[in-house]
Amino acid sequence: MTRTIVASATREIVIGFDQPFCVIGERINPTGRKKLAAEMVEGNFDTVVRDALEQVAAGATMLDVNAGVTAVNPNETEPPLLVRTLEIVQNLVDVPLSIDSSVTAAIEAALKVAKGRPLVNSVTGEEEKLEAILPLCRKYDVPVVAISNDETGISMDPDVRFAVARKIVERAADHGIKSHDIVVDPLVMPIGALGSAGLQVFALLRRLREELKVNTTCGLSNISFGLPHRHGINAGFIPMVIGAGMTSAIMNPCRPQEMEAVRAANVLNGTDQNCSHWIMTYRDYKPAEGGAAAAAAAPAPAGNGGRRGGRAARAGVGARTE
Amino acid sequence: MTRTIVASATREIVIGFDQPFCVIGERINPTGRKKLAAEMVEGNFDTVVRDALEQVAAGATMLDVNAGVTAVNPNETEPPLLVRTLEIVQNLVDVPLSIDSSVTAAIEAALKVAKGRPLVNSVTGEEEKLEAILPLCRKYDVPVVAISNDETGISMDPDVRFAVARKIVERAADHGIKSHDIVVDPLVMPIGALGSAGLQVFALLRRLREELKVNTTCGLSNISFGLPHRHGINAGFIPMVIGAGMTSAIMNPCRPQEMEAVRAANVLNGTDQNCSHWIMTYRDYKPAEGGAAAAAAAPAPAGNGGRRGGRAARAGVGARTE
Repeated sequence: MTRTIVASATREIVIGFDQPFCVIGERINPTGRKKLAAEMVEGNFDTVVRDALEQVAAGATMLDVNAGVTAVNPNETEPPLLVRTLEIVQNLVDVPLSIDSSVTAAIEAALKVAKGRPLVNSVTGEEEKLEAILPLCRKYDVPVVAISNDETGISMDPDVRFAVARKIVERAADHGIKSHDIVVDPLVMPIGALGSAGLQVFALLRRLREELKVNTTCGLSNISFGLPHRHGINAGFIPMVIGAGMTSAIMNPCRPQEMEAVRAANVLNGTDQNCSHWIMTYRDYKPAEGGAAAAAAAPAPAGNGGRRGGRAARAGVGARTE
Repeated sequence: MTRTIVASATREIVIGFDQPFCVIGERINPTGRKKLAAEMVEGNFDTVVRDALEQVAAGATMLDVNAGVTAVNPNETEPPLLVRTLEIVQNLVDVPLSIDSSVTAAIEAALKVAKGRPLVNSVTGEEEKLEAILPLCRKYDVPVVAISNDETGISMDPDVRFAVARKIVERAADHGIKSHDIVVDPLVMPIGALGSAGLQVFALLRRLREELKVNTTCGLSNISFGLPHRHGINAGFIPMVIGAGMTSAIMNPCRPQEMEAVRAANVLNGTDQNCSHWIMTYRDYKPAEGGAAAAAAAPAPAGNGGRRGGRAARAGVGARTE
């Protein structure tokens, strides 16, 4: 069974097909957050601290840490800033971290100070990236996210994306890195722009699981880009990718609808033993909408006391929801 | 491609792998609804009328119609009551109907007056049922729900349930009924009682699609029986069964959370062309929860104006949800 082990100084997490879905909190990332970028440049980490605490409280399994505050001279500015951000976060929370940078020197600097076994985010199929990042992963014995694009960009053909993933896994093996330490990102396209984006990624996830036997991840909310009520699309996408074999995602854990979908999918996927996490989380649940309030406030008893629908009663299984 | 055609007097619906998920409204069913049963016995169909209108307004593709008001003498009482209920509903709404009874005489009486091409709900693998229901389906040229239990009850072994489904399909063929007119219910167990219930049904759905090439259905909310916040489990289950190949379900369409999951899964499964149904439904969506309101009220523009996360920006795909 494929097991990717990540760890903080005090806590080890396994990413795997038989494990609860691994939620990698995406919030600590100044790209596109001007205010956060300005704060971090000034040495103000208040938002970083708040984002770290909130994401862990919301149920994040891991936290992604990115310090890409500027496109100007990142080779000089990013390594010390990423180190500082990482140290603040790892001294604050006990979840494993993902070191997220496109600057190789920043990744190496962070690896030098990281406690436990962080995840490197990321390598691609580009020759230069492969030969820069994989030796680092070998040297520090850490797993890595492998994004399935290369010098030619992102292929619209899922077979090409699969081939890029296979190339990264094979190259990693050349460097002495086992496939269980490669977490493939098959790349999720916005469904509003490409109607087959969902079917593509479900098929890719099954192949990655069955043929390459690797763990997988994605930038989850890309799927809903450009659509109204994105959280509804995201919340539908989560159970579908989990059903297709995805084992982690980089996402915002502070969104209740998405996290509820993760928890439900864990129950349904058999990775929430005895539904105990679900029951603990929702035993006193009161929905915001008036319509569903009565039903949710009075859950059906565990026995046969609930109302029994016609077909259910005849077939002898549980009652429908009223 | 498997196509099960159902129709009212004026509207035809196709159930199939490349079609939007078929939501069969379950509400018109007195089993377990004492008040409704009493009303129907008295000839009061006000609740039936309201349930029919509400379910169609909520987005039901079809309506199930059941008149099983009593376990006493159903062979005499149920046929005329089912006929009356069916006639009221088919004169009121234009969606196709499902004729739901465990009384063969009631099904035949309803088939005689039904307009269009109703679905018969249901046959099982029991010898007596097979030889009573299948000739009726042949005679009236209508599709039928095949529940995968037999004289021995419901097997906990999914391979046995698959074998029962195969037996029904083969027996139907002996009666001249094509497999595209069999909609198999693989039977969903409550996940709170059987932790593998989800994995079982996902595997069964894939086999039913790939090996028997049949459409499928289930009593959807059985999965959450006994658990708190059942709508959350149901809403996670819907995208997972759709991803695994289920093409319809008998469910309550008046639950917004479940219907949102259906609509999202249709988008992601590629059966909501250009996301047009989603956009039409949610373009002005304002969530009930305060936390998500700002984000949903200001959806990301279709172009590149949204905030772009680090990985997304690097990979050149859409921005994350903020």
